[in-house]
Amino acid sequence: MRAKIILEENELPENFININYYLKKFLGKLPDPPLNPETHKPVGAADLEAIFAKELIKQEATLKEVVGIPEEVRKKMSGYRPTPLFRAGSLEKILDTPAHIYYKYEGASPVGSHKMNTALVQAYYNRKQGIKTLITETGAGQWGSALSLACFYFGLKCLVFMVRISYDQKPYRKTVMNIYGAEVRPSPSATTEYGKLLLKDNKNHAGSLGIAISEALESVVKGREARYSLGSVLNHVLLHQTVIGQEAKKQMEKTGEYPDIIIGCCGGGSNFAGIAFPFLADGLKGERENTKFIAVEPESCPSLTHGAYRYDFGDSAQMTPLLKMKTLGSDFIPSPIHAGGLRYHGVAPQVAFLHEEGLIDSKTYGQPEVFKAAIIFARSEGIIPAPESAHAIKAAIDEAIRARDEGRKKVILFNLSGHGLLDLGGYEGYLAGHLK
Amino acid sequence: MRAKIILEENELPENFININYYLKKFLGKLPDPPLNPETHKPVGAADLEAIFAKELIKQEATLKEVVGIPEEVRKKMSGYRPTPLFRAGSLEKILDTPAHIYYKYEGASPVGSHKMNTALVQAYYNRKQGIKTLITETGAGQWGSALSLACFYFGLKCLVFMVRISYDQKPYRKTVMNIYGAEVRPSPSATTEYGKLLLKDNKNHAGSLGIAISEALESVVKGREARYSLGSVLNHVLLHQTVIGQEAKKQMEKTGEYPDIIIGCCGGGSNFAGIAFPFLADGLKGERENTKFIAVEPESCPSLTHGAYRYDFGDSAQMTPLLKMKTLGSDFIPSPIHAGGLRYHGVAPQVAFLHEEGLIDSKTYGQPEVFKAAIIFARSEGIIPAPESAHAIKAAIDEAIRARDEGRKKVILFNLSGHGLLDLGGYEGYLAGHLK
Repeated sequence: MRAKIILEENELPENFININYYLKKFLGKLPDPPLNPETHKPVGAADLEAIFAKELIKQEATLKEVVGIPEEVRKKMSGYRPTPLFRAGSLEKILDTPAHIYYKYEGASPVGSHKMNTALVQAYYNRKQGIKTLITETGAGQWGSALSLACFYFGLKCLVFMVRISYDQKPYRKTVMNIYGAEVRPSPSATTEYGKLLLKDNKNHAGSLGIAISEALESVVKGREARYSLGSVLNHVLLHQTVIGQEAKKQMEKTGEYPDIIIGCCGGGSNFAGIAFPFLADGLKGERENTKFIAVEPESCPSLTHGAYRYDFGDSAQMTPLLKMKTLGSDFIPSPIHAGGLRYHGVAPQVAFLHEEGLIDSKTYGQPEVFKAAIIFARSEGIIPAPESAHAIKAAIDEAIRARDEGRKKVILFNLSGHGLLDLGGYEGYLAGHLK
Repeated sequence: MRAKIILEENELPENFININYYLKKFLGKLPDPPLNPETHKPVGAADLEAIFAKELIKQEATLKEVVGIPEEVRKKMSGYRPTPLFRAGSLEKILDTPAHIYYKYEGASPVGSHKMNTALVQAYYNRKQGIKTLITETGAGQWGSALSLACFYFGLKCLVFMVRISYDQKPYRKTVMNIYGAEVRPSPSATTEYGKLLLKDNKNHAGSLGIAISEALESVVKGREARYSLGSVLNHVLLHQTVIGQEAKKQMEKTGEYPDIIIGCCGGGSNFAGIAFPFLADGLKGERENTKFIAVEPESCPSLTHGAYRYDFGDSAQMTPLLKMKTLGSDFIPSPIHAGGLRYHGVAPQVAFLHEEGLIDSKTYGQPEVFKAAIIFARSEGIIPAPESAHAIKAAIDEAIRARDEGRKKVILFNLSGHGLLDLGGYEGYLAGHLK
């Protein structure tokens, strides 16, 4: 049985909160800035204006404590936010643990994941600037779906480059984007120079997220009238996701408890940041100590856990500014696991910095143990989780078992970033014993 | 933009409300009872005890005004109930209508539809009676998914006969049931005499809901230790769904409005009954008049609109008691439309009776116009509806347009009985222009 902690519509956050403000003020240092790959000097706002809406560039570099959420965006968010926080009573019972397990459920958004939070803000500011089209890439399709709907809401065209192997294997994701009015192209495609180059070598190229980013960027630069939109990694994207943790804090207050352990799965880093940053701010301010933060990655793509902390490109064609990340190398192609949203060679500069500073931990899990945890969760809490989110579940279960073994009550909070109803192929494979 | 009207957990109904009580008291008559097909006399409780849990048989025939919801069931329901009611502001704007459109969203349940409401009650009472296994059938898979999860919650085994054509075409529905621990067999199967008979004639028999019911019933009768569970049609199933309308009434009170028109899609009749009966009770009591109720069917399976009002079997093998329904004949095989949940030859005796008495209306729509309405809805409200529920949307849109043309403000309430994330094949076909 799960108990639900809900907030009223008027408890929807009014601001995003900025982790860089707290890092500068209380830690006295900041993540290194993005560099121009030619000059190796920090990228200026003007360099980015051909790519991103101006307001988002401003947010990327801001040191203000809070950034207001535009009223039109809050109205759209209020259709699905505040999202519920659940106490996982049945799961606790099955695990026979003294731990209290809570999860924030972002799958309640109309597109089924947390990606809607930033999609709305990005579409809004592009529209406000008079931009007519947003171009992006998508792997598993969560991000593409969210941006498609946000663009439709704000009257923008949306073009999505979708990693070809996902385009072919998950046709329903494309259908979702089409329902929301977006154009979806398999990547590599014959519509960009970079795509053509890759297809010349291999007509059946499976594609990758890094390649799709390159194609999207090339289309933006070439078209001049469109802008690019990214669903993770960048400061402004992580900033938008802080609505998750802010709501979770209010909801935890209602339970009278404060989490000892906070967990999120980690690909680019945005859903982890969303749940963690508002609590991390408490720690930086000195209001809380000993809160443990765990970013969970797949064994096959352990950017944060095993990547090098260095400047690297965000895409395969090396068109992006250099970002100081933990990275497996921009030419790294992860194995085709079902948690497509975690298959990215790098991790957000802010998350990498926090890890390097020892403020957050990370751990990795293999695919079968993650699906096993997902099924335990579905059978106790009813929700079939996205394979990405199931990484967080696995870590939460492990922490709850550790609490049992140590005989200590621990309060565990994790972010259930999305449901898995469009990822059932992975479950089918797992149940049939085909997953490695 | 949609506005959300939520209820607190303590506003979850404490009782189911019984339409038969109101019919008897205020109309002075009742739907005709089920008959034993051999004696043509009303079926007694004892005749049904091999098939259903005793408490459910009692509920089937009760004339009490209310039936209490067991506390354990309420606790499970409180994980997803009360479900939200939304004002469809964006849809109203697109339609440029003075109508106010509200929808109750039952897709918020963990299995994505209203079916969970009755599944929990049925699993609970069977478990309480010491039954170990529930056997059922499923067409599109919504009902099978709900009963699988409810059985897991209450420690019962679950066996589902799934119409073979759906089993083959919608493998992910089977995966959902497997995740929840159920065994799923394609129907016709080689595990029943009736199934074997059909397979002997045609090894590749596509199956039908009527056939799957027959196989489930045969397995129950043969096994003796299991019981049967039905997801619609019967009085007790409709009774359980009245939580929907009771909540909707409270939510409408909060808006200060009362619906002029109440709409639900109609297959067996349970989601329509769920939203309509509590409001119908107001009308029978004389507290409200002129409320219009519309049950919406597919053109290809118009049981309520064009069926004969007579006694008929509920299944193909003619094993069930005779039910006084509106029916297209128990041998009617509807064309394979995507709204699989609406492909049943009959309609609930209570709904048929109300239609015959002129207390409710019905209408039918073709598949393409229903998908067109579904896409308008997805692009305004964000939610991709189940093809079944999209029938209600189409009717709501038509009523809103009529209100615009007549220049009259109408308050329209419809039941969005489920989301369509496991039905994207239909959308893909529609968008590609393949649907007739």
